Amino acid sequence: MHGYSATKNEYGKRMRRIEGQVRGIARMIDEDVYCIDVLTQVSAVTRALQGVAIGLTEDHLSHCVANAARSSPEEGEEKIQEAAQAIARLVRS
Amino acid sequence: MHGYSATKNEYGKRMRRIEGQVRGIARMIDEDVYCIDVLTQVSAVTRALQGVAIGLTEDHLSHCVANAARSSPEEGEEKIQEAAQAIARLVRS
Amino acid sequence: MHGYSATKNEYGKRMRRIEGQVRGIARMIDEDVYCIDVLTQVSAVTRALQGVAIGLTEDHLSHCVANAARSSPEEGEEKIQEAAQAIARLVRS
Amino acid sequence: MHGYSATKNEYGKRMRRIEGQVRGIARMIDEDVYCIDVLTQVSAVTRALQGVAIGLTEDHLSHCVANAARSSPEEGEEKIQEAAQAIARLVRS
Repeated sequence: MHGYSATKNEYGKRMRRIEGQVRGIARMIDEDVYCIDVLTQVSAVTRALQGVAIGLTEDHLSHCVANAARSSPEEGEEKIQEAAQAIARLVRS
Repeated sequence: MHGYSATKNEYGKRMRRIEGQVRGIARMIDEDVYCIDVLTQVSAVTRALQGVAIGLTEDHLSHCVANAARSSPEEGEEKIQEAAQAIARLVRS
Repeated sequence: MHGYSATKNEYGKRMRRIEGQVRGIARMIDEDVYCIDVLTQVSAVTRALQGVAIGLTEDHLSHCVANAARSSPEEGEEKIQEAAQAIARLVRS
Repeated sequence: MHGYSATKNEYGKRMRRIEGQVRGIARMIDEDVYCIDVLTQVSAVTRALQGVAIGLTEDHLSHCVANAARSSPEEGEEKIQEAAQAIARLVRS
């Protein structure tokens, strides 16, 4: 059981929609669609992925991190370090 | 013919790889992989998409925008405004 | 007392360095320095600010959020919602 | 003369406002303001810096890059490569 288990289906749907958008961009490139229109779609997919990442981070804090913090300060701190590194990767990407 | 036409196949390959990565994330979520590992993959896909966007932007400047600037100042300025808006969407996403 | 209190002086120093960099960019613009060199500095300051934000987020999770989670599930959840919104703003900016 | 010369004063004003915001964040940290409120301000300054960067990029394309493209394909391409690298740094930061 992980943070996102309760909303797993919702994330599954969002990822399949993103997969369809990525396939759509590949098709746009194949059909020589105007560069700017391709770029607009790439920005949209990037934002959709960030939305998934933000949701997963929140679920992870609510479950794994909060449980670890209640279990012991050491376990809490370990999970928080790990979460902070994942957040840093998201902020910097 | 657009900016990316000469390197269309390369972009096609990159988008198919990204599509595979997105499908991999959907599978990770379905198989209850640890949230932090899912987040690491989401960051990797976001960076891969940004790489495609940066390449498309450069190709667009090299072809469509440079041609328009050589054609007339007005056409050049119009294409630059449009490119600047696309760049703004990328920077802000 | 907040998450960053123990390392307050360190953050104070980083912010003063960033302030100096921002003033340096204003001077570069005033002295007509080449646009690309100004942009390089703006990217450097943006990254420095993100570094401060990531540090503050980690400290906040380690102190305020972990304490709230230990105090009660409700308080923990409230702090986590609030932190997740701040993280979303960072990721999207 | 660079791309931003005509609007130099406007950029000067924006950078001084950002400098004031950065100083405000240093003061918030010094006065132990709640972490989340500090983070909100850091996100606002990051967005303001991105706005300056986007404006400078547009001005650079409209002037330096467009002039180089009109001057010769080689000069145009050189400036576009340079601009694309600066845009990549902005997108990735």
